[in-house]
Amino acid sequence: MTLYRSSLALFTDLYQLTMAYGYWKKGFQNKEAVFHLFFRKKPFGGSFAIAAGLEPAIDFIKNFHYDPSDLSYLEKLRDSRDKPLFEKKFLDYLSTFSFTCNIDAVREGTPIFPTEPLLRVEGPILEAQILESPLLNIINFQTLIATKSARICYAAKPDPVVEFGMRRAQGIDGALSAARAAFIGGCPSTSDVLAGKLLGIPVKGTHAHSWIMAFKKEEDSFQAFAEVFPDESIFLIDTYDSIMGVKKAIEVAKKMRQDGNEMVGVRLDSGDLAHLSIEIRHLLDEAGFKDAKIMASNELDEFIIQDLKHQGARIDIWGVGTNLVTGKDQPALDGVYKLAAIRDKGGEWEDKLKISEQTIKTTTPGLLQIRRFFDGKSYLADMIYDIRDRLQSTVCIIDAFDSTRQKFVSSDIPYQDLLIPMLRKGKPVHTFPSLLGIQEYAKQELEKFHPSIRRFLFPHPYFAGLEKSRHKVKLSLIEEIKNQ
Amino acid sequence: MTLYRSSLALFTDLYQLTMAYGYWKKGFQNKEAVFHLFFRKKPFGGSFAIAAGLEPAIDFIKNFHYDPSDLSYLEKLRDSRDKPLFEKKFLDYLSTFSFTCNIDAVREGTPIFPTEPLLRVEGPILEAQILESPLLNIINFQTLIATKSARICYAAKPDPVVEFGMRRAQGIDGALSAARAAFIGGCPSTSDVLAGKLLGIPVKGTHAHSWIMAFKKEEDSFQAFAEVFPDESIFLIDTYDSIMGVKKAIEVAKKMRQDGNEMVGVRLDSGDLAHLSIEIRHLLDEAGFKDAKIMASNELDEFIIQDLKHQGARIDIWGVGTNLVTGKDQPALDGVYKLAAIRDKGGEWEDKLKISEQTIKTTTPGLLQIRRFFDGKSYLADMIYDIRDRLQSTVCIIDAFDSTRQKFVSSDIPYQDLLIPMLRKGKPVHTFPSLLGIQEYAKQELEKFHPSIRRFLFPHPYFAGLEKSRHKVKLSLIEEIKNQ
Repeated sequence: MTLYRSSLALFTDLYQLTMAYGYWKKGFQNKEAVFHLFFRKKPFGGSFAIAAGLEPAIDFIKNFHYDPSDLSYLEKLRDSRDKPLFEKKFLDYLSTFSFTCNIDAVREGTPIFPTEPLLRVEGPILEAQILESPLLNIINFQTLIATKSARICYAAKPDPVVEFGMRRAQGIDGALSAARAAFIGGCPSTSDVLAGKLLGIPVKGTHAHSWIMAFKKEEDSFQAFAEVFPDESIFLIDTYDSIMGVKKAIEVAKKMRQDGNEMVGVRLDSGDLAHLSIEIRHLLDEAGFKDAKIMASNELDEFIIQDLKHQGARIDIWGVGTNLVTGKDQPALDGVYKLAAIRDKGGEWEDKLKISEQTIKTTTPGLLQIRRFFDGKSYLADMIYDIRDRLQSTVCIIDAFDSTRQKFVSSDIPYQDLLIPMLRKGKPVHTFPSLLGIQEYAKQELEKFHPSIRRFLFPHPYFAGLEKSRHKVKLSLIEEIKNQ
Repeated sequence: MTLYRSSLALFTDLYQLTMAYGYWKKGFQNKEAVFHLFFRKKPFGGSFAIAAGLEPAIDFIKNFHYDPSDLSYLEKLRDSRDKPLFEKKFLDYLSTFSFTCNIDAVREGTPIFPTEPLLRVEGPILEAQILESPLLNIINFQTLIATKSARICYAAKPDPVVEFGMRRAQGIDGALSAARAAFIGGCPSTSDVLAGKLLGIPVKGTHAHSWIMAFKKEEDSFQAFAEVFPDESIFLIDTYDSIMGVKKAIEVAKKMRQDGNEMVGVRLDSGDLAHLSIEIRHLLDEAGFKDAKIMASNELDEFIIQDLKHQGARIDIWGVGTNLVTGKDQPALDGVYKLAAIRDKGGEWEDKLKISEQTIKTTTPGLLQIRRFFDGKSYLADMIYDIRDRLQSTVCIIDAFDSTRQKFVSSDIPYQDLLIPMLRKGKPVHTFPSLLGIQEYAKQELEKFHPSIRRFLFPHPYFAGLEKSRHKVKLSLIEEIKNQ
């Protein structure tokens, strides 16, 4: 992405820099750490999320550097007694800073479940720390919207869903990143031309109410549009009255036909979409326009689309905006980035965890990987395990939300490990697929889960949890801390 | 804002460009239009919004141009029969495009109510049309967050609210714009260093759980932080156990005192904030740290803050993230941009409106201005009127949501007209105040409304509506359209 002018090195929370300074001052140069990025709450009440934002996140790291304007800003920061917050030597250190971390991450488009690491960073603690805030920002948001998109597309299928939320998106990049994530989740196109230019996503759009109102008569506006765009003639019919509107569209379409052109369809943007679309379908069919599409929009989401289909609505193309690009019913993924191990460079890793009164908020220590088992037809279970552990021939998985639920899986079940190398010593080692490739991968992968797991209302919980020996390590570490 | 590399000219919905092309092809070069930007739904169930994003929006227009990469992208777009979507001559026209519109807008920080225009664009229809999507994106989001911020700061007052939502914000600009809008709404500082650098907002932050966990013992981490930042010592105490944590913080603070330094305070990020803050306050006071502050965070919003205060929580500084920067309970303002009048250049304006089955969605025609009446103590009512209309000495205002509610206001009541000139013939004519100036203005203005109107739960509705003669014009235009 070439949207931003500067390095974005200061796109971080201040405490990452005060901690980095503290590590630097306290001689932690040789301390190495492992952090995992994961979420805890099932988004939108479903079971899964679609991992997204990984390539932009890796891009962010590749382009990371402190430029002179960043350093002169940091030099000016003062503490509460008006003394410089950072000493000059530290800023000199930052001026030549570059990442030497190893990063492993799941492929973009991978369906993923709560507590599973989407990304693992291993390297000098100062470096790994600085990455926390930007990685969370980029991955939280795109994962949220790719998930919402997958749900909406699932409700609409086999019909296409056009994303057109730009005007209600949270900022310029809120629109652009949402267009990217919505595409990954299954939307074939966007209305945002910038997303078309920068990301190669197909763009769609015809006209708005103002076009209709700019003409004396509604039919004149349709006629004029058909003359300019004979092959893109989706007429917006609800400016004054949708039924009158479709009748005028039909009259214009008849004239178009005499010139060898065919009306593509009509668009409804208000009113009772179930009732109106059925009536409009009837009018179109009766007039001999059986192939004309009906596109509908108006505060749609997966629940309303499902309900409209249930009511027999005759809608062929769904336009979804606000609820998709903001993830309206849950506008943030609760992703976190937590320290899981620490060592002196070249030494042994020491497991680390953070305790919480809420069990699910207690973190998992170690160097974690996700193993996804496949029974030949569909995915069976996910196991989070430590790459240092030697696994038994039959593994036991402890459910992430309920430790009394356990699942045994034999070692001859096929599996794949989901975290793959992205950076080694700070250098990119992964070739990213095209956005279309990611979209296809997400769709294929989702289809390997039982339909009851994909359901967006009251899904069957997929079995995902911690390998038993790792669970024991976690429990004994909790006990150790409590005893201190 | 210098965040973006390119002109952002393509940051728009495709249909703005197809309509622009249509206007151009159909010889609408001399057609002029008036558009208003306004919202309809009271955000977050309160009564008001705080207008924000106006300066970035005007900045966007000032920097607007199609660069060669924009034009070559547009040149490549194809229709469904694989013919170029736009002809070359139109792209030549765009290559020299610049705005010649007049824009009037309310000052940033102005409290504003549903149906009131935040912004009026008057000029060639093609130009005014193109502005719709980017203006909506920028103003919708920043107005939403400035409003949320004002509500949260109102709940917390007189305590400060630190915005630290960057990691859960909707993209990079979602964080940056939210930091700006949160500052306008009353937050004195942000955690986002980029917002500090680019916007001059004070930045705050100390350390996270990972800092604590990087040391063998919790007290060592506090001690180390105090050595590096003696004047910024807010210790995070909930990594393992908050009560044990504060006791360790107190021990470290005692040592600090021997060296002439004073602990600033402690931070709580989980658990029962009411119960814990009271107990922690007691422990701090008893140990002689009566001035030490307690900072708290954990999924806070205006409702939880009010409830915590009601429970007697002893919290001095509030850290608010996700719920503030995403406007969680309503993550989009429903702002729209609607055509209200049209004319041939130099001719008479013709009123235009769009009808909807939902009364509130029927637009208001004309060239609108907002008049805000002041009774010497507080604001009395807002009247939307047409600047072409000659007003009576006593005006009658029709409530925007209920036309049976009317209010008569005498002309000797002082007032101000809220829309002021921003651009004339495309040239900036307004000097924008500093962000701090906007924050102060917003605060002062809000205080001129009766407290029952500022209340964030079940507020008293402020009287805002349409001047009676304009209301009549609107009704007769509706009738005219229905009769067609």
